[in-house]
Amino acid sequence: MKLTPSPFAPRSFPALPDVKGLRAAAGSRGFYARRGIERDDVFLFVFDEGTTCAGVYTVSNTASADVRWCREALSAGGGKARALVAHSGNSNAFTGPKGVEKNEATLKALTQTLGVPKSACFLAATGVIGEPLADPNFVGAFLPGLAGRLGPPDWEACARAFMTTDTFPKASGRTVDLAGVPTAFAGIAKGSGMIMPNMATMLSYVFTDAAIAPALLQDLLADITRVTFNAITVDGDTSTSDTLMVFATGASGAPPIETRGDARFAGFAAALHATCLDLALQVVKDGEGASKFVTVRVEGAVSELSAKTVACHIANSPLIKTAMAAGDANWGRVVMAVGKSLEPIVMDELAIWFDDVQVAKGGARAPDYDEAAASAVFARPEFTIRVHLGVDAHAATVWTCDLTHGYVDINGAYRT
Amino acid sequence: MKLTPSPFAPRSFPALPDVKGLRAAAGSRGFYARRGIERDDVFLFVFDEGTTCAGVYTVSNTASADVRWCREALSAGGGKARALVAHSGNSNAFTGPKGVEKNEATLKALTQTLGVPKSACFLAATGVIGEPLADPNFVGAFLPGLAGRLGPPDWEACARAFMTTDTFPKASGRTVDLAGVPTAFAGIAKGSGMIMPNMATMLSYVFTDAAIAPALLQDLLADITRVTFNAITVDGDTSTSDTLMVFATGASGAPPIETRGDARFAGFAAALHATCLDLALQVVKDGEGASKFVTVRVEGAVSELSAKTVACHIANSPLIKTAMAAGDANWGRVVMAVGKSLEPIVMDELAIWFDDVQVAKGGARAPDYDEAAASAVFARPEFTIRVHLGVDAHAATVWTCDLTHGYVDINGAYRT
Repeated sequence: MKLTPSPFAPRSFPALPDVKGLRAAAGSRGFYARRGIERDDVFLFVFDEGTTCAGVYTVSNTASADVRWCREALSAGGGKARALVAHSGNSNAFTGPKGVEKNEATLKALTQTLGVPKSACFLAATGVIGEPLADPNFVGAFLPGLAGRLGPPDWEACARAFMTTDTFPKASGRTVDLAGVPTAFAGIAKGSGMIMPNMATMLSYVFTDAAIAPALLQDLLADITRVTFNAITVDGDTSTSDTLMVFATGASGAPPIETRGDARFAGFAAALHATCLDLALQVVKDGEGASKFVTVRVEGAVSELSAKTVACHIANSPLIKTAMAAGDANWGRVVMAVGKSLEPIVMDELAIWFDDVQVAKGGARAPDYDEAAASAVFARPEFTIRVHLGVDAHAATVWTCDLTHGYVDINGAYRT
Repeated sequence: MKLTPSPFAPRSFPALPDVKGLRAAAGSRGFYARRGIERDDVFLFVFDEGTTCAGVYTVSNTASADVRWCREALSAGGGKARALVAHSGNSNAFTGPKGVEKNEATLKALTQTLGVPKSACFLAATGVIGEPLADPNFVGAFLPGLAGRLGPPDWEACARAFMTTDTFPKASGRTVDLAGVPTAFAGIAKGSGMIMPNMATMLSYVFTDAAIAPALLQDLLADITRVTFNAITVDGDTSTSDTLMVFATGASGAPPIETRGDARFAGFAAALHATCLDLALQVVKDGEGASKFVTVRVEGAVSELSAKTVACHIANSPLIKTAMAAGDANWGRVVMAVGKSLEPIVMDELAIWFDDVQVAKGGARAPDYDEAAASAVFARPEFTIRVHLGVDAHAATVWTCDLTHGYVDINGAYRT
């Protein structure tokens, strides 16, 4: 089916900085061409020696073969990266021994073509789950050709190559000054459905030419994931392929950041956080069928985790998501979602705001409740649902989109 | 908005048996009349002295004032019932002190009109959450009039009086022989959205003229709820008002069933189970916008709870529910839902069937997979998704419906 572009699609692809220490190429293995669609469906990144990396992956018990390989490589190689290959058209999840064969064939092509260690090669796949693989070499066969065309990344081509139900390519970049050294951050992401917190999301890669110790990078990435990719939800469904990786080439020329005490660490962390947050919010803004972008902020909770649990119950409720779509400020459903979360609350202190309009106060409708004002907020394309639980001082934020006819259409037709 | 009747609506209201020991009346307090709709919106049941009862209620932390009263009355009165009042139009949830005032006014009218103890009076309300109550006596004021019209129940009138987004009134009844005594069971239920396991569902009442000790009835009801009302889900949302109560008038004339060892207990339990299951499945079949009725059976789990958790992840996944609606046999999404449940599985043993068509086997697509056969199952109005997790021998069943454009429409328009 032809997808309607998200109303939040940016006018143009953002300008990304030049990240030193890497080369890339995107191409077509013909997956979409067979259906008459001209587009790329695979990309290859090659990193200079010395590149470190970190990754977070889906917590699913039916993780794809690619995710299982990435975990193994990250552990075996100690966070050293030389190559990354991602392709769309098949998720390589629930593909049995053939899925592992495909990875072995791809890794063989990478090590032979590039002369790099196997454990420094990372793989990703996205598309239909469980679709059998006729030829295990269907990615490997294209790698020598791709490797022959390596050069400065065409970021937009790469971001487009791994799209599935995405309606726009997602990217974010910035250059920051770390102790006098200009350091580039560039990230790309794909994802639109099967998106839910408590995981790394779909597929997202961030590249920087900073140098940083892999254990420190892994630690920082886990922190950042919690408040970016693990704080978004489109439909509450968790993919079998979710992957977020960061590659630090060290080609900026500065010495490596080894500890959190390094004067440059805060600047590095802020730039990585900004890049991940921008990418995560773009994933929500391209949520399948999304017409509203909604921030859910829960305060006054017993802990950050409790606040996030309540926020997810609100953000994932089909009743609230359909009310968002219709612009119906049905705040009673927010009360319902808070209640079903089973998290600690003081009901007589419960308060709810839609942007700056308070709709509930002291466990009942706000005395000066104004239906027109509340409805005006729900009519906006972007707004915030804020809830105070009245228990303690902890808070969390989750970002989501609405549930529209578009979601029903897209997900009834995805395979056809 | 005008609701399209569910395709599973029965041709006619079922014949219910005469339950001795109770009288009822339904009427209008004018809630719908103000919008030009002629229908009842309140009912009253009055029970003979000696009637015992049991109840299960929502686990929500924002339970309605009516639910909180029922819990208190059940505990204070020791399972004795004399009156039941339920009304539609306002859920009396998140209504602050006014909600409690409404209950007190209703209870005062009941005790004064009927001369029964307060703790033997049970209340229920359903409708919009958080709508303030202008006049706390808006139910109580109608009770003397209703009490003047008490008689043998018009079951259909009562079942219609507490409907909200329901498209058909729900009832189930049977007469069974308990040691030579014909014993009647009659039940009514309402519910269509905000339906999800791990609770009693919406509002449902079962009446019997058997005599049974209240503690035993409570115990049995908890068992039966687990595999009936707590095993259905429409949208994963848990209401603030969910209530299931059983009233046993004892008017059949037989001596009370006091223990599980009583020869009549199995027959009583079977009749109550059959009534509750029938009502619960009718709630799913009238799920908001439902076009498919789907049984999710999970086997081979480490425990019944684990099987049920996996079944709920499948039944609540928006991606699977939209695929059901479209008749797209996207079995990879079932793999996804099993994986995200985080319950123990042996992935290489995972198997999936759609009715009798095996689609997955040994952790991959079934070797003899037949897309046409799988799609033919998903095209049926009723079918079963069966999953074997390959771990142990425990199983559970959950019933659900699909997610259609109708659900999006109904829940965007509910308050208007």
